[in-house]
Amino acid sequence: MERPLPEGVRWQGGSPPGFSADLAGHPVLPQGLTPPGRPQGSPMEPTVAAKAEKVKVTFLPRETTTRVPAGTTLFHAAAWTGQPIESTCGGRGTCGKCRVQIVEGAAPVTPADLQHLGQEDIDCGWRLSCQTEVRFEMVVQVPRLLTTPKTAMFGVGRQVLLDPNVHKVHLRLAEPTLHDQRSDYQRIKDALREEGFAMTASLPVLRTLPKTLREAEFDVTVVLCGDSLIAVEAGDTTNECYGVAFDVGTTTLVGTLMDLNNGEARAVGSTLNAQAIHGGDVLSRISYTMGKKEGLEELQHLATFTLNGIIERLVGESGVPTSRVYEITVAGNLTMMHLLLGIDPEPISVTPFASAAAHGLDLRACDLGIAIHPEGRVYLFPAIGAYVGGDIVAGLLATAVPRGNRLRLFVDVGTNGEITLGHEQRSVATAAPAGPAFEGAEISCGMRATTGAIEGVQITDDAVGLQTIDDAPPVGLCGSGLVDVVAQLYKRGLMDATGRMRSAEEIAHAVPASLAARLITVDGVRAFVLATAQETGGRPVVFTQKDVRQLQFAKGSIASGIKVLMKVMGVGPADLHEVLLAGAFGSYIHPDAARIIGLVPAVPLDRIRAVGNAAGEGAKIALLSYREREAAEAMPSRVEYIELSGREDFNDIFMGVLGFPPLDSLP
Amino acid sequence: MERPLPEGVRWQGGSPPGFSADLAGHPVLPQGLTPPGRPQGSPMEPTVAAKAEKVKVTFLPRETTTRVPAGTTLFHAAAWTGQPIESTCGGRGTCGKCRVQIVEGAAPVTPADLQHLGQEDIDCGWRLSCQTEVRFEMVVQVPRLLTTPKTAMFGVGRQVLLDPNVHKVHLRLAEPTLHDQRSDYQRIKDALREEGFAMTASLPVLRTLPKTLREAEFDVTVVLCGDSLIAVEAGDTTNECYGVAFDVGTTTLVGTLMDLNNGEARAVGSTLNAQAIHGGDVLSRISYTMGKKEGLEELQHLATFTLNGIIERLVGESGVPTSRVYEITVAGNLTMMHLLLGIDPEPISVTPFASAAAHGLDLRACDLGIAIHPEGRVYLFPAIGAYVGGDIVAGLLATAVPRGNRLRLFVDVGTNGEITLGHEQRSVATAAPAGPAFEGAEISCGMRATTGAIEGVQITDDAVGLQTIDDAPPVGLCGSGLVDVVAQLYKRGLMDATGRMRSAEEIAHAVPASLAARLITVDGVRAFVLATAQETGGRPVVFTQKDVRQLQFAKGSIASGIKVLMKVMGVGPADLHEVLLAGAFGSYIHPDAARIIGLVPAVPLDRIRAVGNAAGEGAKIALLSYREREAAEAMPSRVEYIELSGREDFNDIFMGVLGFPPLDSLP
Ligand code: FES
Ligand code: FES
Repeated sequence: MERPLPEGVRWQGGSPPGFSADLAGHPVLPQGLTPPGRPQGSPMEPTVAAKAEKVKVTFLPRETTTRVPAGTTLFHAAAWTGQPIESTCGGRGTCGKCRVQIVEGAAPVTPADLQHLGQEDIDCGWRLSCQTEVRFEMVVQVPRLLTTPKTAMFGVGRQVLLDPNVHKVHLRLAEPTLHDQRSDYQRIKDALREEGFAMTASLPVLRTLPKTLREAEFDVTVVLCGDSLIAVEAGDTTNECYGVAFDVGTTTLVGTLMDLNNGEARAVGSTLNAQAIHGGDVLSRISYTMGKKEGLEELQHLATFTLNGIIERLVGESGVPTSRVYEITVAGNLTMMHLLLGIDPEPISVTPFASAAAHGLDLRACDLGIAIHPEGRVYLFPAIGAYVGGDIVAGLLATAVPRGNRLRLFVDVGTNGEITLGHEQRSVATAAPAGPAFEGAEISCGMRATTGAIEGVQITDDAVGLQTIDDAPPVGLCGSGLVDVVAQLYKRGLMDATGRMRSAEEIAHAVPASLAARLITVDGVRAFVLATAQETGGRPVVFTQKDVRQLQFAKGSIASGIKVLMKVMGVGPADLHEVLLAGAFGSYIHPDAARIIGLVPAVPLDRIRAVGNAAGEGAKIALLSYREREAAEAMPSRVEYIELSGREDFNDIFMGVLGFPPLDSLP
Repeated sequence: MERPLPEGVRWQGGSPPGFSADLAGHPVLPQGLTPPGRPQGSPMEPTVAAKAEKVKVTFLPRETTTRVPAGTTLFHAAAWTGQPIESTCGGRGTCGKCRVQIVEGAAPVTPADLQHLGQEDIDCGWRLSCQTEVRFEMVVQVPRLLTTPKTAMFGVGRQVLLDPNVHKVHLRLAEPTLHDQRSDYQRIKDALREEGFAMTASLPVLRTLPKTLREAEFDVTVVLCGDSLIAVEAGDTTNECYGVAFDVGTTTLVGTLMDLNNGEARAVGSTLNAQAIHGGDVLSRISYTMGKKEGLEELQHLATFTLNGIIERLVGESGVPTSRVYEITVAGNLTMMHLLLGIDPEPISVTPFASAAAHGLDLRACDLGIAIHPEGRVYLFPAIGAYVGGDIVAGLLATAVPRGNRLRLFVDVGTNGEITLGHEQRSVATAAPAGPAFEGAEISCGMRATTGAIEGVQITDDAVGLQTIDDAPPVGLCGSGLVDVVAQLYKRGLMDATGRMRSAEEIAHAVPASLAARLITVDGVRAFVLATAQETGGRPVVFTQKDVRQLQFAKGSIASGIKVLMKVMGVGPADLHEVLLAGAFGSYIHPDAARIIGLVPAVPLDRIRAVGNAAGEGAKIALLSYREREAAEAMPSRVEYIELSGREDFNDIFMGVLGFPPLDSLP
């Protein structure tokens, strides 16, 4: 997602006209454009994550070890490392199933322990893991799971335990008698307690109780979202339980209808964000809310309109009734979330980029106008920073970067580059403004990734091989083609390491004439003819020196962000176990080209991996597993946000990565 | 409040025509009229309260002792006995102020202890009382309060600690910087944590944050209801903090606007319940919802219409802005609560009288259409049984009957008699149907308590002294007059202990002729002339034998309920420390007359005490003190509900109390 430039960039280094035009085009955003003065005398405060003391826990018999912030429960510590523990209540202390035996370390006895465990077991060190907080180093024995748990595969090879927030429980309730005059509410609550669930009910649900229970002769299925009773249905409807996982992008929205009983996708649908008519990127959307009184309300309606459109298609295709869709999860950047919520996003766009709310939210679907079950729920991922939003948290859930043993780099490249680097011991994240170059904008021959867009370029001695979308005649360059052409020009020596294109004369001795002939000058600016008019059968596709600068600026910004994080972590490229490229762009880019232009660190090619729509995968995981959702909730306190604006070292680093790495330096 | 008769009564004893007509008038209530078969073979299940194991706690230095259900926190145990403990968070574990020292008994260390207390203190037995559950006998030292707490006097001489659920906190927040990019939400949450409060915020409040904080330059007053952030106001508005306490009766509603800062009433208003156009009593209201599709909705609207009317008058009179009224508390019978909530009350009216919901509720005012601050809250008292509702729980809060050391009897007489008997060790409650006689209905010369109603009767040797409302010429008898006339007839020997009126001839030898002459026969039925046409200046007021039977039936029902409770508790009249008469009727009735007719047990006169509108007082207490509200929440589990329907001993007891006690038996 787009964000204003760190002021250092514009302030000293300047920015190419095309790049800054994206911001300059919005006169309503003056604060965003005027570099704010550096705050004086306030030392960098350590973030919450940095401050939190971490404590070591070891789970036997696997000997999985992790370090968690003091106060984390054993249950969540286990979930964080992927160690499965029995549970039906998702860690709420009501099911009594999550028992573990403390082998080393102190664990006070909690009320829930007394309720669910015998004194003898307690004396032997048994505790409910969801009630036991880790405060001192601990070794814990986890019993084998009693049943083989249902799991499903998501994200980057993640085996996820099916443990959704939505529970359906079939109850055959005792009918009231003069000797049992409990209220309908209490009757259900008591029955659920027997099953290990706590319950509260909102007014709309209470209103349905007398009629539903009596018409169904007290044989009902209750639907819980967390511990909120959201519906009571006649008879046994446990086999119909659905949710939708959403990836809400600035441009595109994708929704997947999931069967919560088995984790299978029943239908997938995507559509363009209807907000796009009011601006293609985040900043223009924010600008729209500022320029017009009802702007925010309009964008809010367009957001729900788009989501509801997808839901309608999904239920239509699958034949699943809307009333059996109980929850949606939504991963999106913080501005998209503010717009969906109808919260003024303006402060996100101006320094110091403080949002109204960045925590995870559990809301009633009807309060947002989302057309699922009327009492259904909407879960919104928390954000790590104003520009490292819920989409990235979802991506980190899908890839488990902050939870793995090995150091990994996660990069989501769009008009903004969101970067996370880390492992289970420590993780850091930042966002770097890339401008729209990677989306083909502000490039003379750039275009979106549609029919005729050049997505791959191969320059050989005597020809320029072009790969186009739909194999159509080439029309222009999209993001991955852009990266390719620059990488190829550099590799073939048609461009030097500073990004300067060589002239035909300069290079004549080294390359065949047919290739040298493609180096031309247009209006006094050097350029490379990717496809002649003859080759396209229409207008030629010409790539200019100015375009190279645009690309350099974009990749330089992201590379700087990566470099800052590596500096903060004290690691080098050789320490990187993997580089994960997320998002659509990450899927199409050629890893080698990304490496050659220095967009990603110089690591062996097989360590660079495209992970696709990680945000969407994360949204599915959070829908299917409450304890994974809790892991997402923990991300903002586990991943330190590094602000690039105002960093004294940013300019130097940025200048240092504008060029291209020596070709022989690549491993 | 009215309720259907226990079936034993109608089934064997029969009921006078006038009495049953109240029910018979509702053909839509067939279940209520047909005596259900006695449930066979299901032994009386002990109630929750009876089952709960109680544990003894002693608070030093006062040596207050109490027994509480296992699992109660020390904080609540203390509040139950009236032992004050420091707190600003109301027992939520966030303020850290409620520390006590455990002298005897085990108390595991909780996370909140670790957070708020030093290890040294913990080692010395200090704990947060709100986090420590009583499981085994305990002796606890309570530190002296650091400041003299604000208190106010309510109910029956109850000194209540001001500790409202609504808190206003003035915050001067740090403005965001690049080094402190916390969201607005987190900024407020962190600042409140410093002050000892937890916080969550709903979507409507989140929407207000960016604008309010920035316009107020981060100098704001936040309003918390419990831990819900309900408003953020510019500047310091802590001195404007109000709520309204409501007593919602079937006939009349009373609201008191309270200043939550000092516990003072700012305005009081009462009005007739607008629902009355659809029936005077509870059963006819229920019947209305059953007979008409939109009936329930109509009554719901009338309920909020009535409440809003009072609120409007209160704010108008006091000049307090509606936006500064943050909470209302509502005490009312369970049917009134169902109607206010828009929940179908039908099951309450038919055996086995199971309601939809009887627990205490904390709702958003806007969800009920209540016109206070849009995000303000509504608290509804829990009910003990379908016919011992929130009004009685509020009354018990005001009188503290289940929390005192001495055995007391609480009776609220209306068309239904709600009775509670008990003390801190054990309490029981029931409801007995009295019919409308005490409201002057179904009595030949009966009327409501308005101008000209006879409210007091004194029969001397040569005259009948009548006390009328507004000293107007007598028109008819209201409830207290009815009790008086029967007591006087009995006392003067004009009626025997079975309730049979004597004839003029029969009594001629014992009373002056002028008095005997008042005993007449009308249409073959004996009667007593209370006021001749000459005395009234209009129509005579004549009291008939049939009227006596009506009164006997009404008082017999309530006296039976009292007798059942005394039997359950194993106590007699001599054990009663006090008899408390609640409600309007209880205020006007002459205690001696009540005793003579056997409506209340035969106790010395100075032990009978009118306590006025106890429900309204309880509503005020719950508004001003969160820990008192928690005591109200505990009532349903502390007071056992005794169902009269289906009791094998009910008929015998009822027949035994239809007559009047021997005059010389009164102490
Ligand atoms: S009690 Fe259910 S997970 Fe711990
Ligand atoms: S921590 Fe506030 S009352 Fe216990």
